[in-house]
Amino acid sequence: MTTKRNRRLRLGFVGGGIGAFIGAVHRVAARIDDQYELVAGVFSTDPENNQASGADINISPDRIYDDFSEMAAAEAKREDGIDVVGIVTPNHLHYPAAKAFLEQGIHVICDKPLTSSLVDAEALETAVRQSGCVFALTHNYTAYPLVRHARHMVAEGMLGNIRVVQAEYPQGWLSTPLENEGIKQAEWRTDPARSGPAGCLGDIGTHAFNLAAFITGLKIRQLSADVHTFVEGRALDDNVQIMLRYSNGARGAIWASQVAPGNANALKIRVYGEKGGLEWRQEEPNSLYWSALGEPAQIITRGGAGTGEAAAHATRTPPGHPEGYLEGFAQIYLDAAEQIRANIENRKPDQSSLLVPTVEDGLEGIRFIDNVLKSSAADGQWVDF
Amino acid sequence: MTTKRNRRLRLGFVGGGIGAFIGAVHRVAARIDDQYELVAGVFSTDPENNQASGADINISPDRIYDDFSEMAAAEAKREDGIDVVGIVTPNHLHYPAAKAFLEQGIHVICDKPLTSSLVDAEALETAVRQSGCVFALTHNYTAYPLVRHARHMVAEGMLGNIRVVQAEYPQGWLSTPLENEGIKQAEWRTDPARSGPAGCLGDIGTHAFNLAAFITGLKIRQLSADVHTFVEGRALDDNVQIMLRYSNGARGAIWASQVAPGNANALKIRVYGEKGGLEWRQEEPNSLYWSALGEPAQIITRGGAGTGEAAAHATRTPPGHPEGYLEGFAQIYLDAAEQIRANIENRKPDQSSLLVPTVEDGLEGIRFIDNVLKSSAADGQWVDF
Amino acid sequence: MTTKRNRRLRLGFVGGGIGAFIGAVHRVAARIDDQYELVAGVFSTDPENNQASGADINISPDRIYDDFSEMAAAEAKREDGIDVVGIVTPNHLHYPAAKAFLEQGIHVICDKPLTSSLVDAEALETAVRQSGCVFALTHNYTAYPLVRHARHMVAEGMLGNIRVVQAEYPQGWLSTPLENEGIKQAEWRTDPARSGPAGCLGDIGTHAFNLAAFITGLKIRQLSADVHTFVEGRALDDNVQIMLRYSNGARGAIWASQVAPGNANALKIRVYGEKGGLEWRQEEPNSLYWSALGEPAQIITRGGAGTGEAAAHATRTPPGHPEGYLEGFAQIYLDAAEQIRANIENRKPDQSSLLVPTVEDGLEGIRFIDNVLKSSAADGQWVDF
Amino acid sequence: MTTKRNRRLRLGFVGGGIGAFIGAVHRVAARIDDQYELVAGVFSTDPENNQASGADINISPDRIYDDFSEMAAAEAKREDGIDVVGIVTPNHLHYPAAKAFLEQGIHVICDKPLTSSLVDAEALETAVRQSGCVFALTHNYTAYPLVRHARHMVAEGMLGNIRVVQAEYPQGWLSTPLENEGIKQAEWRTDPARSGPAGCLGDIGTHAFNLAAFITGLKIRQLSADVHTFVEGRALDDNVQIMLRYSNGARGAIWASQVAPGNANALKIRVYGEKGGLEWRQEEPNSLYWSALGEPAQIITRGGAGTGEAAAHATRTPPGHPEGYLEGFAQIYLDAAEQIRANIENRKPDQSSLLVPTVEDGLEGIRFIDNVLKSSAADGQWVDF
Repeated sequence: MTTKRNRRLRLGFVGGGIGAFIGAVHRVAARIDDQYELVAGVFSTDPENNQASGADINISPDRIYDDFSEMAAAEAKREDGIDVVGIVTPNHLHYPAAKAFLEQGIHVICDKPLTSSLVDAEALETAVRQSGCVFALTHNYTAYPLVRHARHMVAEGMLGNIRVVQAEYPQGWLSTPLENEGIKQAEWRTDPARSGPAGCLGDIGTHAFNLAAFITGLKIRQLSADVHTFVEGRALDDNVQIMLRYSNGARGAIWASQVAPGNANALKIRVYGEKGGLEWRQEEPNSLYWSALGEPAQIITRGGAGTGEAAAHATRTPPGHPEGYLEGFAQIYLDAAEQIRANIENRKPDQSSLLVPTVEDGLEGIRFIDNVLKSSAADGQWVDF
Repeated sequence: MTTKRNRRLRLGFVGGGIGAFIGAVHRVAARIDDQYELVAGVFSTDPENNQASGADINISPDRIYDDFSEMAAAEAKREDGIDVVGIVTPNHLHYPAAKAFLEQGIHVICDKPLTSSLVDAEALETAVRQSGCVFALTHNYTAYPLVRHARHMVAEGMLGNIRVVQAEYPQGWLSTPLENEGIKQAEWRTDPARSGPAGCLGDIGTHAFNLAAFITGLKIRQLSADVHTFVEGRALDDNVQIMLRYSNGARGAIWASQVAPGNANALKIRVYGEKGGLEWRQEEPNSLYWSALGEPAQIITRGGAGTGEAAAHATRTPPGHPEGYLEGFAQIYLDAAEQIRANIENRKPDQSSLLVPTVEDGLEGIRFIDNVLKSSAADGQWVDF
Repeated sequence: MTTKRNRRLRLGFVGGGIGAFIGAVHRVAARIDDQYELVAGVFSTDPENNQASGADINISPDRIYDDFSEMAAAEAKREDGIDVVGIVTPNHLHYPAAKAFLEQGIHVICDKPLTSSLVDAEALETAVRQSGCVFALTHNYTAYPLVRHARHMVAEGMLGNIRVVQAEYPQGWLSTPLENEGIKQAEWRTDPARSGPAGCLGDIGTHAFNLAAFITGLKIRQLSADVHTFVEGRALDDNVQIMLRYSNGARGAIWASQVAPGNANALKIRVYGEKGGLEWRQEEPNSLYWSALGEPAQIITRGGAGTGEAAAHATRTPPGHPEGYLEGFAQIYLDAAEQIRANIENRKPDQSSLLVPTVEDGLEGIRFIDNVLKSSAADGQWVDF
Repeated sequence: MTTKRNRRLRLGFVGGGIGAFIGAVHRVAARIDDQYELVAGVFSTDPENNQASGADINISPDRIYDDFSEMAAAEAKREDGIDVVGIVTPNHLHYPAAKAFLEQGIHVICDKPLTSSLVDAEALETAVRQSGCVFALTHNYTAYPLVRHARHMVAEGMLGNIRVVQAEYPQGWLSTPLENEGIKQAEWRTDPARSGPAGCLGDIGTHAFNLAAFITGLKIRQLSADVHTFVEGRALDDNVQIMLRYSNGARGAIWASQVAPGNANALKIRVYGEKGGLEWRQEEPNSLYWSALGEPAQIITRGGAGTGEAAAHATRTPPGHPEGYLEGFAQIYLDAAEQIRANIENRKPDQSSLLVPTVEDGLEGIRFIDNVLKSSAADGQWVDF
C-alpha cells in the first residue's frame, strides 16, 4: 500500500480547473498514498478560472502559470521545481504539453487517450524515449487489483490458449445532445478540435481495447469496424461495433456506446481460453468470476482467497470493504511514484510497479483508433494492425 | 394459463427417442397445460430404440411407426388420427417430415432451426402456405413472459426509436471435442449431414437472431460476420461474431459461442432506444431490467407490478415463484393448441395465441444463417438481407 | 426424471376449484412427469363452483362429488377408483379429508401446513401410521435439486459441525388489508377458522422451518419468538421473529413476514458450519453458493459441475435452462408416485424417492407453530421443543 | 466534495502503528479530501514500533510522543499544535485518550465502539459536552452516499410508518481461533481487557445497530438477545442473535457473526414500512434497492437519477465509477473538518456536515451492548432500552 520514500514528490498539473471532472480525480489519486505534494499548475486556459482554481487548492500564486510552456521552463529552473507533471487536459493538448515537460526532464503522468492523432502519438513516443523520463498513462482500470489478478491468471496459463475476448463499454449519458446544453464534459468530448477524430471510440472504446490487451497480453492482427453517430448533429461517433482477430487466432469483439440508457460506466471484459473463462465488471470491481472448464464458477474477491501478489500489491482494504475507482487511479500514481523515485535514484524500480500503462500502450491505443476509423470508412473491411 | 377445449388434441411425434434431449422437453411441454394427448410416433431411426421409446411412454404398439411417411399416411386415415405432429429430429429431417404431415392436413409443431438449407426452408414455407395448416416453430425463448413483455414495451414505443441491439448466446460445453467421445448431443450438432452448414450458428445463433427480431420487430438490412471453428477437427463452426445494421438505422451485434467456459445457456439481449434500455437474461428469466432515460433502473418481475396482458397470458405462477425453461416451452404448445382448435373449428384464434414463431420466422432464421455464412466466406463483407 | 410404470396412477383432488391458486399448481405438478391421471374430485364447497370446476378440467360428472366423505367411500368401491388423493383445501380441512381417504386405504398427497391444530396433527400422524398408506406433504421447496444437494453436502460433512442457521421468508403482498377487498387468497389465510391460530407463521414460516430442518437434519432444542400483527384489524399474525437453539448447540433465526414490500417469495436459507457455508434463495433456485472455509465462493448450478445424484434425480433440464417452482412441485409428485407404486406392488421404493416430506415432518411443523405461539404468548420465553 | 478552507487542519493520531489496520484507513481517509495535515502522534505502546511508525509516515521526531497524556499536553502548548486528534486504539483506551485531548480543547475523531464500558461511555459523553469540542465517531458506514439517501427517504416519509428492520453483519474470518496464531487483529478483538465485555457484538454488532438507528431514526424500546461463543477457548462472543421492538411498534432483528464462512463484511440492512421497502448492502454500496408498495423495484445508484442532496454531498465520482470503504471513511473526516472549522471560527457548521455520528450515538451503542449482554445473561428476557 505504500512505497519507500524520503520526501513527497513535487507534482504540478496541466488542466483540471474548477468545473473539470478528471482533474479532481487525479488530485485525489495523488493524495491517497501520500507520495506527492501538489505545488504548481496551469489549470485552465481561461485566466480567471486558472487563478481561481489554483487558489482553491492552495497553490502558491507564483506557481500558478499562464501556460504549460512557461510552467515547464519556470519549474525546471527552480531548485524545488516539480518532479512530475500530471496532464489532464482535453486530448489535443496531451502531446504538446507532455513534450514541453519531457524536454525539461520532468516526468509525466498523462490522461488517456494518448493524443488526438496518430502523428502526435508517434512523436510523443519518440519524445518519451529520448527524454529518459517516466511516462505513465492513466488507463486506470488496469490498476484494479482483480484486473491485475486476471492478467496474472492468463499469464500463468490458467486459461490455456485464449480463444475469445469480449470487451464492452456502454454508457447512456449522451443519448441526447447534451453538448448543446452547456454541459462541458459533453462539449469537448464531441468536439473534433479537442478530442480528435474519435468520440465514443476514443473516450471509452480505447479503455476497452486497453483492458483487453492488458489482461490477455494478446496483439490484434486485424479488425473490422462499424462506427456510427446516432444523435443528430453530433460531430463525432457515439456507438462503435468492432470485430477482432488476434495474432494467436483468437476472435473477439469490442462494443462501445454512449447511447445505451441504463449504463453508466459498464465496462466489462470476458476472456475465454481452452481451460477456462474469466469475467470482470468495472462497476463491481471487487469480484472476478472464474470458471475452470468443468468446474463450478468461483467468485474471487479482492483480498480474498485465491488472489496473489499482483492483486495484493494494489489492495488497500481487506475483502468485503470495497475499493473503487479512486483507489484504482491512486494505484497508477503509487506505482508511477516508485518508477520516478527509481529514475531519480538511478536504480531499478520494484518489479511490482511496472504494470502502469506506458507511452507504447498509449500509441497502440491511438493505432487502434486509427485502424477502427480506417476500417469503418472502408465499410468494415478487415484492417491489419 | 388454459384455453377453452372440449377434448385434448391428439399428438404424435417424429423423433425424441430414448437418449434424446429435446424430445422429452417437448413431451413435458405438451403435458403442462393439458391440451394434448400423446398417441403416436416414430421416435428413432433405429427400430429397436423406436419400439422401446414408444413403449416407454405408453404408446399403443400399432401407433409406433417405422418412418414418418408411413405415420402420416396411417394417422391421416384413422378417425382418431393425430391432429398435430411434433417434429424433434435433427435439422435435416424437419423439412421432409413436416411436408409429409402437412400434405395430410396434419398440423405441425417443429423444432428450430427450420431446416438445414435455404432451399428446404423456402419449400417448407410454401408447403405450409398451401396446406392451410398451423405451423408452430419452437423458438421457445420467445414465450418467456418477460420476453413477451419486452416486445410489448418496444411496440408501445416505450423505448422510442431503437438504436442498438446486442444479443449473445454463449455456451462452454463444446470447448473440447465431445463429438469424438460418443456424446450424442454433440455428434449431430457438429455433423453437417444432420445439422446443415451451420454449427453453433444454427444451434444457438439463430435463437439470438430470432429473439432480437421478436422483441424489436426490426428487420436486418445488412450483416457482416466472422465465423470460426476453434476445436481441432470439428466440422462446423463453434464461435460466431456478427455485426448488424437494421433497416431503421439501428446497429447491433450477435455473438454465439460454444467454446466459452463458464456459460451454460447464457442467452442475453439488450435493446437500447432513444427513450430507454432493456436487458433480459435467459438464465434468470423472471426479471427484466428496464431503464427509462434519466430514471433509476427498474426490475420488472414476471407477474409483478408493471407487466401487462402479454406477460400475464404466458404466466402460470405468481411473482417470486420462478418459472423456467419448460414453462416457456409449454406456452408455445398452449398457444399452438388454440391456433389448431381455431383452425379445426374454422374460427379466428384468440389474438393472445398469435405470438408463436411461424414458418416465416423460421425462413428468416435460415436466411440469417445463409447470409452469415456468405459474409464470412467473403471475409466479412456486408451482405444485404 | 421418470420412474418405471405400467399405468398412470389414478388421482383425485379435494379442493382447488376455479379461483383457487394451489390447486392448479398441484394439477400441473401431477402432469409434468406423466405419472397420474386426474379422474375424480370435490373441488369446492360451493356446489355450483364444484360442478363448473370439475367440468372445466374434464372430470366425468359421476366423479365430481359433493363432499370428501362421499368421494372417499365411492372411489374406494370402484374397481377403477383413485389410488391417491391430493388435498389442497384450507388448512382446517386437511385432517378430516386425509383421514377419510386413509381409512379407505387411499394414499394421500397433502398441502402444508399439515393441519390447523396440534391435536389434529397428532391424530393425522396416527391415522397415517395405522393406514399403511403413503402420505406425502408438499413442502415443495425441499424438492428443488439444489436444496437436495445442499442437504447432501451437510450430510456428507462438507460443512463440518453446523453452527448457525439463518432462514427467512419475507413477502410483501399483505402490507395492506387485502382480506377486506375480496381477495380469496388473503381471506382464508387471515381467517383463524380456516388457517388455525397462525397466519404468516403457518403459511410461510413453516416453510422456512421445514427447509432448515430438511437441509441440516438438525433438531431444534429451544426457541424464543415474537409474533406480531401490523395490519389493523387482521386476525392473525403477519410478522414473526424467532431465535433458535439447536440440540447440537447451533444457533439460528427464522424471520417470516407478509408486510415486507419488495419481497415476493423471498425464501432464503444460509447454513454455516465449522468448515464452510451455504446459501440458497428460492427466487433463483438454480444456483447454490458454497464457500469452503478459506476458499473462494463457488456458484454451484443445477445440473452443473459439482452436483451429484440427489440433485440429478430431481433435474429435468440441463444447466442454464432454468427450472422453477412447478418442477419442484412436480418432483414431490414424481417421488410420491414411486412410493405409491412400491406400496401397491408391495416392494421397497427406490431410495431416491424417500426425500418427500412425511406426516412426521408435518407434525414437527405444527409443533413448531405451537411452540412459537407459546413462546410469544410468554413474552419470548425460551420454549423447549 | 470539498469544503471551504484557508489552511489544512493539523491532525495527530493515537494508535495506528505499523501492523495495525484501522490506523492506515484513518490516515488515507484524512488525506482524500485534503482537509488535514498529519503532524504528530503516539502510534504504539511499544516504543520501538512507535518511533518506527512515526518515521515511516514522516512525522517530525519531536512530535512522536511516548503516550497520549504527554502528547495532549505538549501539543496544547504549541502555537502550531494539533487542532484535532484521531483515536484508533483498541477500545479500552478510547475514553482516557479522548478525555486527555478534550481537556486541552483539542477536537476528537474516535473509532468505534465508543468505549469498552458503559461507565466510560457516560463519562466520555459528559467530557465532550463540557469541553465544547467536536467529537466525531467513525461509524463510517453511515457516510456511504446511499446510506444517507436511505435515511433521507425514511425521513421524507417515503416508506410511511416503519414496521420491520432487519440488520445483519456476518463475517467468517474468526471461524477458527486465529487469536492463538499471532494474528494481531484477532488478538485484541477477542481480549476482554482491550475490547471490553463484547466481542463480535462490540466489533460489528454495534455497526449494525448504529446503521439501523441512523437510517430509520427509530429508538429501540426493548430487546431480547442470545449471545454465544462457538470457537473453543475464545474469551468473547462470536455470534449474536437479537430481536428488537422499537418504540413506534416496529419489530426487527440484528444478527452479527464472525463464524459465518463465505462472508467478509456482509453488513446489510432492510427497512420495511407501510409504503415501501429498502435494501442496502455494504459490499455493493453503490446500489440501493427501493420498492414502493405495488411498483417494480428500483435500483438507485450513487450519483444516479433519484438521489438528492444528502447523497450528492457525500459523492466524489459519477455513477458507475464505484466508491468504496475509504471514501465513506473520508466523508466522516470531511464533515468533521467542517464542524471543526466552524467551531474554530465560532460559526454554525454547514447543515450538510451534521450527519457524522456523535458521542451520543456512541453512548447509545454502548447501551446497546450493555442491554444485549444483560438480556442474554437473563436467558433472553426482554430488556428495556
